[in-house]
Amino acid sequence: MNDRFLRACRREPTDVTPVWFMRQAGRYMPEYRALRAKHSMLEICKTPDLATEVTLQPLKLGVDAAILFADILLPLEPMGASFEFAKGEGPVIHEPITSRAQIEKLRVIDPTDGLQYVLDAIRSIKTALAGRVPLIGFAGAPFTLASYLIEGGKSAHFVKMKRFMYTEPEAWNLLCSKLAGVVRKFLHAQIEAGVDAVQLFDSWVGQLTPADYAEYVKPHVKHILQDVMKAGVPVIHFGTGTQHLLEEMRDAGGTVIGMDARTPFAEGWKRIGYDHAVQGNLDPTILFAPPELAKKHADRVLDAAAGRPGHIFNLGHGILPETPVETVQAVIEHVHARKLTKST
Amino acid sequence: MNDRFLRACRREPTDVTPVWFMRQAGRYMPEYRALRAKHSMLEICKTPDLATEVTLQPLKLGVDAAILFADILLPLEPMGASFEFAKGEGPVIHEPITSRAQIEKLRVIDPTDGLQYVLDAIRSIKTALAGRVPLIGFAGAPFTLASYLIEGGKSAHFVKMKRFMYTEPEAWNLLCSKLAGVVRKFLHAQIEAGVDAVQLFDSWVGQLTPADYAEYVKPHVKHILQDVMKAGVPVIHFGTGTQHLLEEMRDAGGTVIGMDARTPFAEGWKRIGYDHAVQGNLDPTILFAPPELAKKHADRVLDAAAGRPGHIFNLGHGILPETPVETVQAVIEHVHARKLTKST
Repeated sequence: MNDRFLRACRREPTDVTPVWFMRQAGRYMPEYRALRAKHSMLEICKTPDLATEVTLQPLKLGVDAAILFADILLPLEPMGASFEFAKGEGPVIHEPITSRAQIEKLRVIDPTDGLQYVLDAIRSIKTALAGRVPLIGFAGAPFTLASYLIEGGKSAHFVKMKRFMYTEPEAWNLLCSKLAGVVRKFLHAQIEAGVDAVQLFDSWVGQLTPADYAEYVKPHVKHILQDVMKAGVPVIHFGTGTQHLLEEMRDAGGTVIGMDARTPFAEGWKRIGYDHAVQGNLDPTILFAPPELAKKHADRVLDAAAGRPGHIFNLGHGILPETPVETVQAVIEHVHARKLTKST
Repeated sequence: MNDRFLRACRREPTDVTPVWFMRQAGRYMPEYRALRAKHSMLEICKTPDLATEVTLQPLKLGVDAAILFADILLPLEPMGASFEFAKGEGPVIHEPITSRAQIEKLRVIDPTDGLQYVLDAIRSIKTALAGRVPLIGFAGAPFTLASYLIEGGKSAHFVKMKRFMYTEPEAWNLLCSKLAGVVRKFLHAQIEAGVDAVQLFDSWVGQLTPADYAEYVKPHVKHILQDVMKAGVPVIHFGTGTQHLLEEMRDAGGTVIGMDARTPFAEGWKRIGYDHAVQGNLDPTILFAPPELAKKHADRVLDAAAGRPGHIFNLGHGILPETPVETVQAVIEHVHARKLTKST
């Protein structure tokens, strides 16, 4: 197996910096668009053969890890909160949460009860990968999942969620506890099914101040991560807009901390501490620049990492739908062309 | 005149911390909604009597400064880029910029040529204020204005703009130079018309890394601010998501630096330097919490400022449309109830 990714997660030296991109199996790839023309997003997620096909599509670009094709919202359906992906609008929760009574009705499911198709997909993908690269599993964190449940979909300012969180802290904690319970078990089940690492996406948590993070979010994330870390595979903890939360997120858990594109990388890693691996943090929009400029920006990230073992090259957030594939490939090749001759 | 605001801008001691809120004249106020039921946003901006009425509406809440009711996009129309405020969608630029040719056609207007109504509104507002509180004028910064011109409206990822900026840097610089030329003159004209301070809104500039800010934005902002600062009134330099840009923004210019809600306040001020005043940085969404909790969060900001002269209390970004007026008022009263007995 190409184990650069896993070695970097463990902060062991590697020949070159491993690279994978969040949402690397996605709409920017013609193969993916061709499949999406025939199947909905949820159909692909729920059909192990299709999920396997999509998960493997970006391998030809030379990435050092595959990430399970799925969606962070999948656990919500068996919990009792149905949703759909509305065309061009992103996820739409059918009955957004406005009351404690709705939270009480949410089921703390076992992954085998409603998410078996994800575990089946993992087994199918692992077989198809045949050990070429490691497979990353993932789940959404309670705050980010709660944001969809309460806002009903994407949100600019998260006003409904914050109003709920601030005015009904007990109901908020019940919601997050239920989500944390499901996510914890789901990540364990993914590891048992064969993933080689997991990533917890707390994509929107950067909306909070450090004090609010510590009060309303951290206990729930900690509950998940401190337990999942015992399973012995690398655990990546990721969010965006989290420059001010790096220490809090590190303390909540994770063996690898993700940094978004706006976090100065060298300073961020120093703050997190060199006893943690880090992942990031090329700006996804630089992939719309001429390839030479995108490579120059990739160099800035690599320069900031300074050859230190424990850096996984990635974007600061998911790859954007219209991204030119050739620039993605050029950046991957560029990262791989830089030999790591020494460690600092 | 209640000169707390101006004194704090100059880092002089004040009895209590001055407070005003970005977008304090806006949809959360019933008086404003009543007027908007009869007039469009642009009608209000273009009718000095109406702009005066709206500008003065929040005074009854006890704020220490008034801010001109206008919009950062107003200069675009006389420059040759027409737009409208589409219901529920925000601004829509009729012909988004996609080519250098369009940029070459933009007119570098004098404020009296197409923006006279703003200057008339300032004179009318100054008369109506009768010296009660200072009046703040404002303009949008080149990056933020360019984002609307190229994206055609609001944007999540600014892909069109960044693609343009990265692939056509010369055309980008021409665009920003033209915008900077207009904005510089517009701010000077506002000062001549009577505003007591000005704020430059670079609302979306936090999207850039420090290196890109320095390369693509800073020269243009510097061109504006270094010149406007010579006029002798306080100059506030504001953006959101700018935690990583504070030093760069300070160096570009401004006597007061705005901090958004995600910037840890004490650390931010230290990084900016105590030779600058600072403005901020209560999270606008905390105003949806129970008033007691909102006041507790206001205390955190005040505690971080530690009574040091040169703090203007504000939100980290504009007040949100559904914000309860009574919580806004409670926070203003709470800030004013804390005497500044000593300075550090």
